[in-house]
Amino acid sequence: MPTALIILAAGQGTRMNSDLPKVLHPIAHAPLLVHAMRAGASLAPEKTVVVAGHGAEVVEKAARAHDEDVVVVRQDEQLGTAHAVAQARDALAGFTGDAIVLYGDTPFISPETLTDMIAARKTHDVVVLGFEAADPGRYGRLVKDGDSLQKIVEFKDATEAERAITTCNSGVVAADSATLFSLIDDVSNDNASEEYYLTDIVGLANARGLSATVVTCDEAETLGVNTRTELAGADAAFQKRARAAALEDGVTLMAPDTVYFAYDTIIGRDAVIEPNVVFAPGVTVESGATIRAFSHLEGCHVSRGAIVGPYARLRPGAELSENVRIGNFVEVKNATIAEGAKVNHLSYVGDASVGEAANLGAGTVTCNYDGVFKHRTEIGARAFIGSDTMLVAPVKIGADAMTASGSVITSDVPDGAMAIARAKQSVKPELARRLFEKLKSAKLLKQKESK
Amino acid sequence: MPTALIILAAGQGTRMNSDLPKVLHPIAHAPLLVHAMRAGASLAPEKTVVVAGHGAEVVEKAARAHDEDVVVVRQDEQLGTAHAVAQARDALAGFTGDAIVLYGDTPFISPETLTDMIAARKTHDVVVLGFEAADPGRYGRLVKDGDSLQKIVEFKDATEAERAITTCNSGVVAADSATLFSLIDDVSNDNASEEYYLTDIVGLANARGLSATVVTCDEAETLGVNTRTELAGADAAFQKRARAAALEDGVTLMAPDTVYFAYDTIIGRDAVIEPNVVFAPGVTVESGATIRAFSHLEGCHVSRGAIVGPYARLRPGAELSENVRIGNFVEVKNATIAEGAKVNHLSYVGDASVGEAANLGAGTVTCNYDGVFKHRTEIGARAFIGSDTMLVAPVKIGADAMTASGSVITSDVPDGAMAIARAKQSVKPELARRLFEKLKSAKLLKQKESK
Amino acid sequence: MPTALIILAAGQGTRMNSDLPKVLHPIAHAPLLVHAMRAGASLAPEKTVVVAGHGAEVVEKAARAHDEDVVVVRQDEQLGTAHAVAQARDALAGFTGDAIVLYGDTPFISPETLTDMIAARKTHDVVVLGFEAADPGRYGRLVKDGDSLQKIVEFKDATEAERAITTCNSGVVAADSATLFSLIDDVSNDNASEEYYLTDIVGLANARGLSATVVTCDEAETLGVNTRTELAGADAAFQKRARAAALEDGVTLMAPDTVYFAYDTIIGRDAVIEPNVVFAPGVTVESGATIRAFSHLEGCHVSRGAIVGPYARLRPGAELSENVRIGNFVEVKNATIAEGAKVNHLSYVGDASVGEAANLGAGTVTCNYDGVFKHRTEIGARAFIGSDTMLVAPVKIGADAMTASGSVITSDVPDGAMAIARAKQSVKPELARRLFEKLKSAKLLKQKESK
Repeated sequence: MPTALIILAAGQGTRMNSDLPKVLHPIAHAPLLVHAMRAGASLAPEKTVVVAGHGAEVVEKAARAHDEDVVVVRQDEQLGTAHAVAQARDALAGFTGDAIVLYGDTPFISPETLTDMIAARKTHDVVVLGFEAADPGRYGRLVKDGDSLQKIVEFKDATEAERAITTCNSGVVAADSATLFSLIDDVSNDNASEEYYLTDIVGLANARGLSATVVTCDEAETLGVNTRTELAGADAAFQKRARAAALEDGVTLMAPDTVYFAYDTIIGRDAVIEPNVVFAPGVTVESGATIRAFSHLEGCHVSRGAIVGPYARLRPGAELSENVRIGNFVEVKNATIAEGAKVNHLSYVGDASVGEAANLGAGTVTCNYDGVFKHRTEIGARAFIGSDTMLVAPVKIGADAMTASGSVITSDVPDGAMAIARAKQSVKPELARRLFEKLKSAKLLKQKESK
Repeated sequence: MPTALIILAAGQGTRMNSDLPKVLHPIAHAPLLVHAMRAGASLAPEKTVVVAGHGAEVVEKAARAHDEDVVVVRQDEQLGTAHAVAQARDALAGFTGDAIVLYGDTPFISPETLTDMIAARKTHDVVVLGFEAADPGRYGRLVKDGDSLQKIVEFKDATEAERAITTCNSGVVAADSATLFSLIDDVSNDNASEEYYLTDIVGLANARGLSATVVTCDEAETLGVNTRTELAGADAAFQKRARAAALEDGVTLMAPDTVYFAYDTIIGRDAVIEPNVVFAPGVTVESGATIRAFSHLEGCHVSRGAIVGPYARLRPGAELSENVRIGNFVEVKNATIAEGAKVNHLSYVGDASVGEAANLGAGTVTCNYDGVFKHRTEIGARAFIGSDTMLVAPVKIGADAMTASGSVITSDVPDGAMAIARAKQSVKPELARRLFEKLKSAKLLKQKESK
Repeated sequence: MPTALIILAAGQGTRMNSDLPKVLHPIAHAPLLVHAMRAGASLAPEKTVVVAGHGAEVVEKAARAHDEDVVVVRQDEQLGTAHAVAQARDALAGFTGDAIVLYGDTPFISPETLTDMIAARKTHDVVVLGFEAADPGRYGRLVKDGDSLQKIVEFKDATEAERAITTCNSGVVAADSATLFSLIDDVSNDNASEEYYLTDIVGLANARGLSATVVTCDEAETLGVNTRTELAGADAAFQKRARAAALEDGVTLMAPDTVYFAYDTIIGRDAVIEPNVVFAPGVTVESGATIRAFSHLEGCHVSRGAIVGPYARLRPGAELSENVRIGNFVEVKNATIAEGAKVNHLSYVGDASVGEAANLGAGTVTCNYDGVFKHRTEIGARAFIGSDTMLVAPVKIGADAMTASGSVITSDVPDGAMAIARAKQSVKPELARRLFEKLKSAKLLKQKESK
């Protein structure tokens, strides 16, 4: 049975105290909304509809940046969750199958839970996701009769007996798409808030003789974010799980609490991650690679045996082959570094390819930008780039070639050649001493004058 | 009514195991004493007297560095708190109004609490700051009769009934200045420790028919520091509060626990602070700026839309206008960077002004120091500084000017001009290969010889 | 009485999910095995025997790297702890004295505990190390009669009464070497697991009329490591103790939780360590030195008054004299820096000596590597190295000498001389403007074409 996702993402999130719509606040470098989209994507949905409202334009942009096939619809007025779901109706016209309603501010629903919900659809018309609350507080309660879910009651409307129920409502719902929209047609806003509540569909379904049931998940999965403090807590929870999973997978984390993972970081078994490493999105570190302290990685690949850092910054497009060495205060961007090549100190390698076993000295810079265009640098295998070489791109350094320290290389260097572009050293005896004396005298004079 | 502060800061702090006087140990980059001074400053006191003893010279220096109007008096022998307060008498001769006694090792008394104490002075002669102790332990107890504070008893002198009291003494006291010194005159050192206790003034006041009362505050405010472990705990408490306040104010902290705040850091709403950022004193980050991971900021201003880091170090006097970009491994000191200018990689910009939309290439250095004097560099709007340009100050680069990569610029460059100072590249075919061969042969020879 | 250590280090540690043998996983930069060796070394043992099995070659290498006198023997099949100890028999042939059995995966046994065990040997033939377990769970129980240890029972074999015992077995045992091996001869593998258990020697000793007793230690000392999560927990426990000890010793740690210590870090009283500092092995920081934020130190010495960082990397062989200043984005390796010398910005100083009060400008690089050999750079006292100077080693800069900014120095510079190697600056009026115009036109053209 095909599935469709309806992700509600229209809320303003006033309590975030932010101009950014709530669902775009990040956990582990991905917006809350993207976490919800990724969870839902595990069902391989035929269609994904995001219902945007506050900040709809930026929400749409972010949603489509993550998945260009997503359909974003607008909920111009926020009249309740059922009303929000109703906005997805046109986008799902023609769709036949299960629809599942998720929330853009609820990032941690697991793929397993969604699979359980879809499985429960085989025996029930409406499936609601619940959780056993440690402290049920003011959550809505799920009123069951055996397997059958009778209704969802808001805390404020609940009887004493209903308040004693500890199975609470997460808001996540699955139903046949046509059934869902048909039930929503019957939802009214005849309540204190004058809102159309999605939760009402359970009672309506039972009234129609349809069946409803509950699938439960861990309370942690249903965590919603309403304040920045909750966001920070959610991020911390994510990091804790990511660190535990990495340890479980055989990654060596010297000080797990100091490693910040992105939502999609992939690290191989027996890779070593030293303290104080930040992973931004899009990083793969192969088994047996080492990421040293204070490194920052984004959109890059680090192969087996490579050693990165300390203080290395790998930016998007950095592709490090086996046994590459990227040292301290080195930035690599959009560059392939072939096997065994070394860039050990204080360098910028951008828009470049570096051949195997090449050695780039301290202070090497690929001058890739002329103020308007970016150009590429190619460095051949086993080339030896002297310290403080400026490689003015576009430029090619041949295999086994060399550049003299301090040279500005503006034209190509053939294989095996030496390129040199520097002035001859001259030495002026006693000049330094005389200069110092002069400067010191000037200083004394100044000090006298200022008295 | 004018107020005066008397801050007791004479203790050695033996348990700190340090040559530095206890009150100079820092929390969030400010000495304990400065925290106390700042709390007191919220009352806009007419006079602030610091009573120094151990390490009086360095204590005086630190106190005056924070507030040059402070009066520092000496307590040469440490004969008790009343004796310490008595040392402020001459400094407050002629002062009419309320005096409030604070402690240099008690950094967290809040402005609100001090305001409450001053308010209570309207109805009572002596106001003592107390707190409800979670675990009263060996704290002094405040013995009350209704609103009226009867006396302060040391734990060791307390009866069973008095020990059952949970309102404890913080030591902070407010009274009319003349009254305070008059009461202190009557304090004797007729006790086991032969010390003059400030707490005795409460009993003495009652005996004179004066009234005393208690204002209470949160126990956390009264936290005193006696060991380095307590200092670390106090710093952690400060950081926790600062992080919570920033979140509350709408700052995005990706990983709040990894951000270290200074006592005076100011960050605007919707500014983004990535993991592992250190704020030293004097930093203002405007709303909508981004401070990326591993950055270190001190004495600087970052405007809206600016992006700083990762691995950026902003030192005192760095003033970044809107949309400025300071990238990795870049140090900026005493320099104004105009709107939209970029210093993206491996550069040192010191004692400089950089014009709007200027672009400084990787490895740019302002050579501001000749061994004796510092000189300024001026870079015009839209100038393009080629990678590895040395700007030997004093020097001016005009608007729309350019420097060739690898140039050492020693004289001014007019607007729109190109400056170049480099040797022509020459290429020697096969020389690199021959050199490598020679070096490798030498290595083999060496290896043979060492056998 | 001479002592010998037998350290069991043959296990695979399947639950570590690693190709690295369990005992080589690090805590605070030292393998678990080395922690056990260091604990044992406090007894000044005459002989240390490590029993290796899984990954024996790498285990042997690591053991010998730490102590070249260690004897590593092989246990090819893992037939139980008594069998493992038996493998040390030949290595200890001729040795007379106490043998003590330790475990390569139990890093935290304290020297004091081992001394207690050796002391207890004076009155008993066999001494077993026990601990009072907070939660005895499935640990082996020590069955005592007064001072006398009767036997050690595995949990699964224990009676109800024995299970009520809370004194548990750590596995660490001391006995006269000859007695130990003689008792081991009698251990059988007639049990469910068909393993030879070292614990059996207690019952056997009593049966022979020998006496056994228990020495107890803190449970934390007996912590064994079986998973990466336990390893992370052990590292965290180590760091917590190291930080507390540093505070106790009078070190200023601004944010103790952000400082990562190596197993052997030594820091003097009133040294200041800012947030986010990593210590790798072999570091000594003298009293009164300051290590600023984001610094990384390994194998180096920092003297009184020196200030290091932020973002400084000191590598092995960096020796900083008093009042040296190493600033941001600076790497120092195998180099002595004499009193008062400064390397403040963006530099690499490797294989060098820097004279007192010398000043190295931003972007200084010692070009120490020619692709095959490493060479040394010597910089004299009070020398002034201009920014972006390349010092092509081997090279000597004299005292009071100077190099011009941007120079590549290939031959020695005498005392007091000025060396210069750069091209003269030329300025081409309007050329920058023309170039920009041309580039912008090209861009416009490209944009049109791509439409």
